[in-house]
Amino acid sequence: MREGFIDLRSDTVTQPTEAMREAMFKAMVGDDVYGDDPTMNELEAYAAELVGKEAAIFVPSGTFGNQLSLFTHCTRGEEVILGEDCHIVAHEVGAAAVIAGVQLRALPTEKGKMNLDKIAATIRTEDIHFPETSLICVENAYSNGSVVDLDYMKAVYSIARESNLKVHLDGARLFNAAAFLKVEAKEITEYCDSVMFCLSKGLCAPVGSILAGSKEFIDKARKKRKLMGGGLRQAGFLAAAGMIALKDMTKRLSEDHENALYLAEELEKLEGIKVDRDTLDINMVFFTLENITELSDKIVKHFADNSIKINGQEGGKLRFVTHYWVTKEDVDYVVSTMKSFLK
Amino acid sequence: MREGFIDLRSDTVTQPTEAMREAMFKAMVGDDVYGDDPTMNELEAYAAELVGKEAAIFVPSGTFGNQLSLFTHCTRGEEVILGEDCHIVAHEVGAAAVIAGVQLRALPTEKGKMNLDKIAATIRTEDIHFPETSLICVENAYSNGSVVDLDYMKAVYSIARESNLKVHLDGARLFNAAAFLKVEAKEITEYCDSVMFCLSKGLCAPVGSILAGSKEFIDKARKKRKLMGGGLRQAGFLAAAGMIALKDMTKRLSEDHENALYLAEELEKLEGIKVDRDTLDINMVFFTLENITELSDKIVKHFADNSIKINGQEGGKLRFVTHYWVTKEDVDYVVSTMKSFLK
Amino acid sequence: MREGFIDLRSDTVTQPTEAMREAMFKAMVGDDVYGDDPTMNELEAYAAELVGKEAAIFVPSGTFGNQLSLFTHCTRGEEVILGEDCHIVAHEVGAAAVIAGVQLRALPTEKGKMNLDKIAATIRTEDIHFPETSLICVENAYSNGSVVDLDYMKAVYSIARESNLKVHLDGARLFNAAAFLKVEAKEITEYCDSVMFCLSKGLCAPVGSILAGSKEFIDKARKKRKLMGGGLRQAGFLAAAGMIALKDMTKRLSEDHENALYLAEELEKLEGIKVDRDTLDINMVFFTLENITELSDKIVKHFADNSIKINGQEGGKLRFVTHYWVTKEDVDYVVSTMKSFLK
Amino acid sequence: MREGFIDLRSDTVTQPTEAMREAMFKAMVGDDVYGDDPTMNELEAYAAELVGKEAAIFVPSGTFGNQLSLFTHCTRGEEVILGEDCHIVAHEVGAAAVIAGVQLRALPTEKGKMNLDKIAATIRTEDIHFPETSLICVENAYSNGSVVDLDYMKAVYSIARESNLKVHLDGARLFNAAAFLKVEAKEITEYCDSVMFCLSKGLCAPVGSILAGSKEFIDKARKKRKLMGGGLRQAGFLAAAGMIALKDMTKRLSEDHENALYLAEELEKLEGIKVDRDTLDINMVFFTLENITELSDKIVKHFADNSIKINGQEGGKLRFVTHYWVTKEDVDYVVSTMKSFLK
Repeated sequence: MREGFIDLRSDTVTQPTEAMREAMFKAMVGDDVYGDDPTMNELEAYAAELVGKEAAIFVPSGTFGNQLSLFTHCTRGEEVILGEDCHIVAHEVGAAAVIAGVQLRALPTEKGKMNLDKIAATIRTEDIHFPETSLICVENAYSNGSVVDLDYMKAVYSIARESNLKVHLDGARLFNAAAFLKVEAKEITEYCDSVMFCLSKGLCAPVGSILAGSKEFIDKARKKRKLMGGGLRQAGFLAAAGMIALKDMTKRLSEDHENALYLAEELEKLEGIKVDRDTLDINMVFFTLENITELSDKIVKHFADNSIKINGQEGGKLRFVTHYWVTKEDVDYVVSTMKSFLK
Repeated sequence: MREGFIDLRSDTVTQPTEAMREAMFKAMVGDDVYGDDPTMNELEAYAAELVGKEAAIFVPSGTFGNQLSLFTHCTRGEEVILGEDCHIVAHEVGAAAVIAGVQLRALPTEKGKMNLDKIAATIRTEDIHFPETSLICVENAYSNGSVVDLDYMKAVYSIARESNLKVHLDGARLFNAAAFLKVEAKEITEYCDSVMFCLSKGLCAPVGSILAGSKEFIDKARKKRKLMGGGLRQAGFLAAAGMIALKDMTKRLSEDHENALYLAEELEKLEGIKVDRDTLDINMVFFTLENITELSDKIVKHFADNSIKINGQEGGKLRFVTHYWVTKEDVDYVVSTMKSFLK
Repeated sequence: MREGFIDLRSDTVTQPTEAMREAMFKAMVGDDVYGDDPTMNELEAYAAELVGKEAAIFVPSGTFGNQLSLFTHCTRGEEVILGEDCHIVAHEVGAAAVIAGVQLRALPTEKGKMNLDKIAATIRTEDIHFPETSLICVENAYSNGSVVDLDYMKAVYSIARESNLKVHLDGARLFNAAAFLKVEAKEITEYCDSVMFCLSKGLCAPVGSILAGSKEFIDKARKKRKLMGGGLRQAGFLAAAGMIALKDMTKRLSEDHENALYLAEELEKLEGIKVDRDTLDINMVFFTLENITELSDKIVKHFADNSIKINGQEGGKLRFVTHYWVTKEDVDYVVSTMKSFLK
Repeated sequence: MREGFIDLRSDTVTQPTEAMREAMFKAMVGDDVYGDDPTMNELEAYAAELVGKEAAIFVPSGTFGNQLSLFTHCTRGEEVILGEDCHIVAHEVGAAAVIAGVQLRALPTEKGKMNLDKIAATIRTEDIHFPETSLICVENAYSNGSVVDLDYMKAVYSIARESNLKVHLDGARLFNAAAFLKVEAKEITEYCDSVMFCLSKGLCAPVGSILAGSKEFIDKARKKRKLMGGGLRQAGFLAAAGMIALKDMTKRLSEDHENALYLAEELEKLEGIKVDRDTLDINMVFFTLENITELSDKIVKHFADNSIKINGQEGGKLRFVTHYWVTKEDVDYVVSTMKSFLK
């Protein structure tokens, strides 16, 4: 029996690194509502530059950042075009109808992409029966593990520009997308007006995300962040960890991708397992197993008994996620645990 | 040149009949906020019975009735499953995000039907990331002119029942659907918890729609109608016309359908015109014409010069609508006007 | 026993006049969503002129008009300053929090007036903790029966102007106020950016109110009226009655005021009755009676037995309302009924 | 010239203590969205017990906690009774109209207390024109520095109970109130259904507040916290500091109160200064100075030049706030700086 768990449920479970703990211990902090927190000011400036935007603001979570963006870009009752299985539609508790009060026009996606003609056709013209379309949301990397290419990003941005719409990028795993595409993050964010990206998840910071955009946009968002209860005080502790996330941890994400690929290849060798290769772009391995719906509870228990945490099936699939705290040796151990389950 | 216009833009343009004017003239009225309007009380009771529901309430418009239904069925932030091109999504100015504050999950449709498996898959399970699904909306007749069969109605209702969801029916043209299906309206409304249907449109009443459902539902809706500004005073005038709409006008809708079919057949004989036969169930003829996008303004003008009002193309199609004020002779005149245009 | 009831509950109970019924019978109507209703177009133009505004729009009720005004003037989350017992706060079912989504800052009133210094002190400065103040609402005549003078109207408007706020006037009984002040309605509405006034109530039209303001404001309101479900079709029937309300019925309101004063004087002669003279400006008589809280049901029944409808006490007071259908002789009969009750 | 600043602007500026930094460094953390953070679980359990409630939940800020409470207690459109100058009305950016969507009925206060009869009179009865009253909010200590006694707390709670309303306590400075009243916090919170209190401010934790109530209430709040973007990941770092705030720092607040009293007494000795003794219950000294409106910028600058941070006047008053990082010697230095200014 190994010491400590391997946690494959998500990269949200990542513990901060030792360097992060030290940086937090020593962090200079102040009251960020007064703009007095030096570490936070440094983080927001650094983050803005990293994605090529004028300004940035720290928010408590990715959901907070996405919803703040909708709330800042849109007037209540306007329409937002986005993918039907993106995080904002699927995993944010219906917040868009509550906070921004916008109407979602969710389009089918394939590998994270909406059909471009369908986007264009969904944008409203002027008519007394129609709400105004004001925003298109894209997500990269997509929740299903696939990364969207720069041509698509550019094409969506260009459609938006023609109709005077804004584009928001849900980049919760932006740096995973950049690592996969082998580009700088700012080459992706060039094609959006605002971007949210997480300091936690694969980057290992304990808490927080960034929303970046034009100075005017972020100024407006700062007040709305206060309204939403996201005005923190000595938030520099979180910023200190965030700085390490952005400076150091962004560089090692391809390791997680390689481990995910290795895990996929090893799982595929096992009878009855089919890996979803189409969406294997980053650190997530989606796969099916015969009779998984019935076996779901059993497999979770078997792995737990072997000190591995996994989630049960969703939509007939299992998802294993690699991250900083999952080594190549851990992957071997996961595969052997799967073998023992299949027997 | 003929006297008076033929108006094919919609059946919303229908003038009240002479009988309606007389009924309004003589109507006994009272303050309906106090429940004192005898004609309104009679209408609401009659309307409820007609669709087999416990109670009914008069509302100023179809949009008002649909939105009141969402507002009464749902708590803000909940999800509603409905067709992506239905009236609530497409033509109600984004109201669902403002008044009920619900998140729409709009699914693709074919001939007015959503895929049943897709509906079932869209219903949320319990999870901290998920809003609750509370309602499915169906529409019959559908905005595109097609009528949905009873089996589909029943199947949707059964899916809803299994998950403890409610079903709202947008029956703006409920009696057209009933006429097409050759059933009583209540055979359709059996498969919903609430239904909205219009007294205006093909039924010719000047103003107003009905929302019907359980007594408890309508009691709640009555207070919310007041909140939305729909508590009228001596509304019995409108109810008097509404009674004739429901008692007499519902019986003659098949005439409009026959005229629409006749119009379709005659138009099809003309070079370059293709009628959308798939959606030719009620009083709406959708068709395409070569180069219609370029010709749209020209054809509207040509018809106007010949005393016929039509709308320009939408999505590459023209729509001609028949109703009480369009006779078979009018259809002949419309066709000959089309011939003179095509030359 | 007299034939027919005298109804003192409110002026909302007023039946339309014979002239109104005839005008409705003959009304030329069209589809008002298309802008095709000639009678409605005439009414809106006439109404705008009457209150000295660029444009006007018909709405189904006073509550609808007030809420549409808030929704059009304000962005969600902004603040509105108004009297704590005005109709918008007290009698509109909390709609301002639902439709416009604004925060009400309700101030104490005396005879319908807020303290001017308190208004000025309540207007927000710029601060990250503060919402924006965007609107002040005044009401004239006030719900409690008192009329606010032109100096007050002017003073509020001037405070608003200094802070770039708008002023909305709830003029449900605007013409009663004008009659009391012996001025034209437009002399009152000069001191507001928008005004709502009712065609029903003392003016006897069956249904409907008007919202008037700048052309730009009304254009925006027209689309939001559609969103709120207030886009009616052949609304010209209601407009026809509304025209008579505005042209003829506005001229006779002082009769109702005289009858109210006469009623007050006669009631005061009776032992135990104290009329609220402070708020006796228009057609409403508020008064107290010894032990009224206990006697409330009994007095309602006694009057009903004598063919007079009255409401029970509210806040320890009874309110009798005069209107077109209450003659001076009716007042005598009411007083004698009160005498028989007091015995 | 002294080293380092004295910061009297607020107790929100408090730096964490050394013990807090160490606790954060060593904190065991996990993914709190999965309920896996042991330090957070410990904090929430401890916090609930401290205020005598079944359950508690961590939130990013006091505003977040208050708004989450409104959102959880109330259905949109309902009414909340509260003091017109309380934090929810005055300093939360209008959030109540956006997130919970409730209508505020703000009543005048005296030393933090609303008039009890006025509260009772403001609660709605059942009527088609009325929204439902669902909540009363009290605040203790009050934003103006005064503490409300237990009798008042009890009386409000009893009024609420009679009408089946809930009571929420904004206890941002709950432990200051308890210190002043010389009672346990739970003796205050006995008279409310939910309470929000801050770990930051006088208690020196860097970030976070607690919302406590019944288990059912907190379960509901947990999902709504996710919707509002307040679901944090490895939040145990903040919880570790929060534990010290609750265990140790709550015990020393009377020192701050004594220092505030000492500061007040010394300031009063100076010509032209008038301390607001009525509201001198906790760690805030409000006072006036001749010509303060004109001198505001000058005095801020003079103090800054002497290494003391203060805010400018608001409503004609200055506010100096004492806290953990302000010693009695610092107070002497503040007073001497004031003397040098007054010369």
